[in-house]
Amino acid sequence: MNIPKTSFPRVVIVGGGFAGIMLAKNLKNQELQVVLIDKNNYHTFQPLLYQVATGGLEPDSIAFPIRKVIKDIPNFYFRLAEVSEIDTNKRKIITNIGKLKYDYLVIATGSKTNYFGNTKIEKFSMAMKSVPQSLNLRSLILENFEDALLTSNLEERNALMNFVIVGGGPTGVELAGALAEMKKGILPKDYPDLDIRQMQINIVQGGNRLLNTMSEIASEKAEDFLIHLGVNIYKNVHVVDYDGYKVDTNTDLNFEAATVIWAAGVKGATVNGLQNECIIERAERIKVDEFNKVKGYKNVFAIGDVACMSTNQYPKGHPMMAQPAIQQGKHLAYNMIAEITNKPLKPFIYKDKGAMATIGRNKAVVDLKKIRFQGVFAWFVWMFVHLFSLIGFRNRAVVFLNWVYNYIRFDRETRLIIRPFKKKP
Amino acid sequence: MNIPKTSFPRVVIVGGGFAGIMLAKNLKNQELQVVLIDKNNYHTFQPLLYQVATGGLEPDSIAFPIRKVIKDIPNFYFRLAEVSEIDTNKRKIITNIGKLKYDYLVIATGSKTNYFGNTKIEKFSMAMKSVPQSLNLRSLILENFEDALLTSNLEERNALMNFVIVGGGPTGVELAGALAEMKKGILPKDYPDLDIRQMQINIVQGGNRLLNTMSEIASEKAEDFLIHLGVNIYKNVHVVDYDGYKVDTNTDLNFEAATVIWAAGVKGATVNGLQNECIIERAERIKVDEFNKVKGYKNVFAIGDVACMSTNQYPKGHPMMAQPAIQQGKHLAYNMIAEITNKPLKPFIYKDKGAMATIGRNKAVVDLKKIRFQGVFAWFVWMFVHLFSLIGFRNRAVVFLNWVYNYIRFDRETRLIIRPFKKKP
Repeated sequence: MNIPKTSFPRVVIVGGGFAGIMLAKNLKNQELQVVLIDKNNYHTFQPLLYQVATGGLEPDSIAFPIRKVIKDIPNFYFRLAEVSEIDTNKRKIITNIGKLKYDYLVIATGSKTNYFGNTKIEKFSMAMKSVPQSLNLRSLILENFEDALLTSNLEERNALMNFVIVGGGPTGVELAGALAEMKKGILPKDYPDLDIRQMQINIVQGGNRLLNTMSEIASEKAEDFLIHLGVNIYKNVHVVDYDGYKVDTNTDLNFEAATVIWAAGVKGATVNGLQNECIIERAERIKVDEFNKVKGYKNVFAIGDVACMSTNQYPKGHPMMAQPAIQQGKHLAYNMIAEITNKPLKPFIYKDKGAMATIGRNKAVVDLKKIRFQGVFAWFVWMFVHLFSLIGFRNRAVVFLNWVYNYIRFDRETRLIIRPFKKKP
Repeated sequence: MNIPKTSFPRVVIVGGGFAGIMLAKNLKNQELQVVLIDKNNYHTFQPLLYQVATGGLEPDSIAFPIRKVIKDIPNFYFRLAEVSEIDTNKRKIITNIGKLKYDYLVIATGSKTNYFGNTKIEKFSMAMKSVPQSLNLRSLILENFEDALLTSNLEERNALMNFVIVGGGPTGVELAGALAEMKKGILPKDYPDLDIRQMQINIVQGGNRLLNTMSEIASEKAEDFLIHLGVNIYKNVHVVDYDGYKVDTNTDLNFEAATVIWAAGVKGATVNGLQNECIIERAERIKVDEFNKVKGYKNVFAIGDVACMSTNQYPKGHPMMAQPAIQQGKHLAYNMIAEITNKPLKPFIYKDKGAMATIGRNKAVVDLKKIRFQGVFAWFVWMFVHLFSLIGFRNRAVVFLNWVYNYIRFDRETRLIIRPFKKKP
């Protein structure tokens, strides 16, 4: 890869998510060369992907060009590439655009959807981890309603209007809320010749409550809100099979549904080339010590979702969400600067800022450290926090404008099938 | 096709562009059933596609859901479908989702890119007539610069940074201006390790002036503006071949360019099934009389780009742009209502509101009926007119916000490769 050699040590960061971007930003003006690599030329604000999928926000408003983040920083380089392997002996990464030597390597590759080995579900269900996936889901939802108009077969029509969300975490809950808002405000007007009451939104949750990483009161309230919105909630049920039409579970429950959204799990997006013992099996995350150093290596780090730092409070690693990634990125920058300036390193300590989820219009649940609240105020807090977590003034302004418009007008105007998802005969 | 039968005559409108939308809007609350058919579920504001292609606007801000246009109008139906043929004997249209009987048929299918039979150019060049095409071009432009970083072959790198725009009409001129602004403000910062001065923007125009449907002073000024922005202008030259790398012309001039944008001509997007003598050969438009009635039929109409109404002032038909389409859509609604209420029909008379084109920041040319002007004021007029021609308050607000932001910050933030265009090895 075509990066000039300098006398500075080279830090290669793989991944431009929250962790990688925060690290890069905090390494500026140091005696380091920084190369950031991502398979996209933009950073994705994943927490709002579900609003793209449901026609509430344009995709471009939650994506931010990575080159803009690092522009005007001397010694910073970005390369659009996919890393296929790392060679820790030769201190090289191998990518689709060539090899690159590193002095320090930081793996910040995030997470990907975990199908737990079920290739049929992987093939037929929809995921929502990237902008194109969310756009595919947006197209599919709308194409389903267009197709529902065409069939006189009632079973088929109902299947086209039946949405099964597997997984009751924040993604599943927020998507269900947004679909329910579409059902209430948009679809009956857009499709007056369909009986939209027949549209079903189902959440199938393996555990015994939704939002099981949040407080019990948050779970309860979220369920209340969803039930009030007409969402069907199934707990203690596992989806075991899906062939594009029939959803099977480990119980008597089954569905006929044209759309299954798989939000039941994520795993680390690990890279090839690390010793196997670095990887913690189940969630496929990379074991790191309290300095985010990958166990067994001196100059390889992992941060964010892909890193598993086992602590007393988090024996299975920190939650795979934005906050630990942001904090680890920032913290690793501190430690790297400490290392090159011969100062003592500090172990990473996660500051839990809490968790929140929104459930449609005017409703959210928020768990902060000392206080928990739900309802309208929580919803405003949710919006405020998400708005200010977005990177870029323009993105914030466009998202804000859309939210205000959608709120006042009860609308979602980006219900556009820009690239159809279904293959037409 | 599943449309209920009523006692009202059924008007089938094929195409949701300016003409089709204006017709539909003006037929509301009449004793008519209106079925609007389009292959997309959204209306495209084509005049701003070049801003999508150059990262200045998000695609969703210039697209508007057609269902929203016609919602709450009784007796209105929309179907997402492609019309393959019309059967004027049986008064039916044949689509990919079935057949539909009509009492009145209105063909408002617009125009498509005219390659004048050159299949190689069609295969290798980019067009900019639809949202996906513009997004493909946006991806390709950005991918070219990413790839230019990777090659040490100077010739190849220059070809990747060489843009050939074929056609010096408004589309070609506006795109060239936008590319020149990218070259000035964005690309040198995004790609500090490339010599962006090597980027070439070329307009190849077959005639002896740019914007040849506008006044001579507009042409001259547009050329001045473009030259000032560093755009190379070649007049009286025809591109005759392109193989994805080498551009051949009918003169000694040739280019090595990874990107050719074909903006050299459009033709009517006609439908199969009309008698051949209805079609005017060269531009493939449908001959209509002064009531937009297709010659030889009593109940088949054509409006907008696809219609060719030969008048004294426009013997080859009206210009293929938004204004005639909007006016014909409105006017045909008037005549249709007149017909069902037994009032006299009025022939269509085109009110030429003038033409305008923008050439980068602060520069535009405007020809109005009585006055012509160029420069900053023209640029504001251009923006004002385009902003208020957009359908939908949200779209206007988002476009306005982007323009203000881009203007103040000298920026274009939607430089995102959401769906890569090039096939990667």
